[in-house]
Amino acid sequence: MNGKFNRDKYLNVLKELDSFRNKDFTFNSGRILGSMCTQPHPIAKEAYNKFLETNLGDPDLFPGTKEIEEKLKLFILQLLNAPNSSSGQIVSGGTEGNITAMWIAKKLSGKNEIIVPENAHFSFQKIASLMDMKVIPISLNKEYYIDISKVEEKINNNTAAVVGIAGSTELGTVDPIDKLGKICLDNNIFLHIDAAFGGYVIPFLKELNYDVPDFDFKILGVSSVSIDSHKMGYSAIPLGTLVVREKKWLDKISVKSHCVSGMRQSGILGTRSGGPVAAAYAVTKYLGKKGYKNLVRNCMNLTFYTEKRIKELGLKLAVKPTMNVIGVKIKNLSDVVNNLSRLGWKVNKVDRISCIRIVLMPEIEKENIDMFIPDLEKACEEAGEL
Amino acid sequence: MNGKFNRDKYLNVLKELDSFRNKDFTFNSGRILGSMCTQPHPIAKEAYNKFLETNLGDPDLFPGTKEIEEKLKLFILQLLNAPNSSSGQIVSGGTEGNITAMWIAKKLSGKNEIIVPENAHFSFQKIASLMDMKVIPISLNKEYYIDISKVEEKINNNTAAVVGIAGSTELGTVDPIDKLGKICLDNNIFLHIDAAFGGYVIPFLKELNYDVPDFDFKILGVSSVSIDSHKMGYSAIPLGTLVVREKKWLDKISVKSHCVSGMRQSGILGTRSGGPVAAAYAVTKYLGKKGYKNLVRNCMNLTFYTEKRIKELGLKLAVKPTMNVIGVKIKNLSDVVNNLSRLGWKVNKVDRISCIRIVLMPEIEKENIDMFIPDLEKACEEAGEL
Repeated sequence: MNGKFNRDKYLNVLKELDSFRNKDFTFNSGRILGSMCTQPHPIAKEAYNKFLETNLGDPDLFPGTKEIEEKLKLFILQLLNAPNSSSGQIVSGGTEGNITAMWIAKKLSGKNEIIVPENAHFSFQKIASLMDMKVIPISLNKEYYIDISKVEEKINNNTAAVVGIAGSTELGTVDPIDKLGKICLDNNIFLHIDAAFGGYVIPFLKELNYDVPDFDFKILGVSSVSIDSHKMGYSAIPLGTLVVREKKWLDKISVKSHCVSGMRQSGILGTRSGGPVAAAYAVTKYLGKKGYKNLVRNCMNLTFYTEKRIKELGLKLAVKPTMNVIGVKIKNLSDVVNNLSRLGWKVNKVDRISCIRIVLMPEIEKENIDMFIPDLEKACEEAGEL
Repeated sequence: MNGKFNRDKYLNVLKELDSFRNKDFTFNSGRILGSMCTQPHPIAKEAYNKFLETNLGDPDLFPGTKEIEEKLKLFILQLLNAPNSSSGQIVSGGTEGNITAMWIAKKLSGKNEIIVPENAHFSFQKIASLMDMKVIPISLNKEYYIDISKVEEKINNNTAAVVGIAGSTELGTVDPIDKLGKICLDNNIFLHIDAAFGGYVIPFLKELNYDVPDFDFKILGVSSVSIDSHKMGYSAIPLGTLVVREKKWLDKISVKSHCVSGMRQSGILGTRSGGPVAAAYAVTKYLGKKGYKNLVRNCMNLTFYTEKRIKELGLKLAVKPTMNVIGVKIKNLSDVVNNLSRLGWKVNKVDRISCIRIVLMPEIEKENIDMFIPDLEKACEEAGEL
């Protein structure tokens, strides 16, 4: 029914797309230094393509794709030391993971205050607006993670949840989740961990004997963890997983899908492609835990190299890196970022603490950093920063 | 940093994926007869692939992809006769479109009741749960669209929005949007139109001189319209657009994205791929309005053919088809659907009105229907339906 194939028109449209794509920065160039997303592993792209048309909102049509989803969830559950009672829910990413967790916490508690460290992802502002919840921010200590001494005093009869961060958006820092876990257990409060970035990093840092806090279901007080395959899972957008300690909690937010096969749906979204699910599974299967460990080792080595080169310029870091995220203190933030952009480099701006954020994702090579450092020096000199 | 390439492992993973994919039904077979999704147009797949890694949650990195997004929105705005004051928001599909519209309506009104026809998509149940809103259902008339006489009596001081449907999930029916528009204008109430399915159909039915109601911004009372490119837009999941009459309404739900370039975000999701955006744009550009008109003409012709063949079996339709959706009245619903599944055909079950739903999507050919009809007869006979 597609009508006659018009080859010239077809090729012209693709040519037009290419002309736009050429205006983008690309991960492949190694010049996107501020993003927590990544160039997907080659096998992710291939897998995505094979499953592009599948719809996991209607699993009855795609039982094979559904099986892959279950296998991916199993990998994630094991990675996060989730107990037998737990369950995973595939989401589009960290924002949907956080929304879904807060939706559950609100339904379980009937309350509406969320206690979050003040460096929590901006999705919590969306949650407050969308769900009429109130975000109670907790200030950070000098190490840029939650000031644990201030949490308990904010807990009250309206508290629906406490949020801990394992790999903050700003600096990759990790809250003392064990202490948050104890507080939440004692007070019988839902504890959600935003491990969108750190979920695929911390388990391997531990294997590499880095000194990094526990963050997952090993800590009894942890109720849910959100983790993104399209960040350090080295896969394609959109793919995250929310894991909850008790499978039955998902029932609290499930609705009957009256048209699609009479089944229930517990996620926010309806129709969703199996493409990113197959992609994320393919990467976990191809790399395995050993592959991820090597990846994290390489990212950390490059992080330390970058840290050294930056310090040699006379610039200061906001904090010693916990994972492959570096915050460089910059006074003339906009100028430096704009200068870098003009020189072909993209770093992110963290206005709140006057930093540029550099994330050493898997596609970044030492050669990229060797080219970047002189340009960073130049950008800072031009801005009067050095 | 990817580590050594292990060709055997790589191929084995892809082989495993194929073995799962082989358990799925495929659109290509023409045997998925109940879905409102489709095999994406070939140019959609190619475009998707080119933009797989792009992230429109961080448009600063991908200005070219962002331009494509603006061009796609322009096409949609024109298709829906949206005024100059309007604006589009790309969403993952109809569910997110409906959630976002109700989020806006709630913020604008400060109220929490949503008046919906009782055949509204189940996403409104999610909305009620997620946002603590109350769904007020309105019964349908014999033609299976909203009983307009019952709307005004349900409007009260708590009404945040009224919802009209242009292409219902169950039967493809269209509410009298002009009358809903008048009621909502008179009462100063937000009117959202769920045109996830019909948005790409009705404009072309009109051009083909079908007698089908207006549904878009031509009707002054319409505040927002949700439309899905991954349904009759012939593109890939996940891609919908929510269009709002006043651009400033999006500010009501926008939050500052403190890490990503200091910009504001007005959608629910954060990170989102430019792949499906480029795909949807490519299809609109390749097909153009003329191509969509031909597509809709073909789908309607096959709908009438299918209707005729079904009636010849002695089965009855729930209602005369408004668009390329057929509801066949079936008493022994589960038996017939299961029998069809065993024979390799997937139709959807509409429990609420004891129907099977057949959707004549672009990939379905007359030959598929000619093979289906004898199997439908067999499935009905075995179930004692005929």
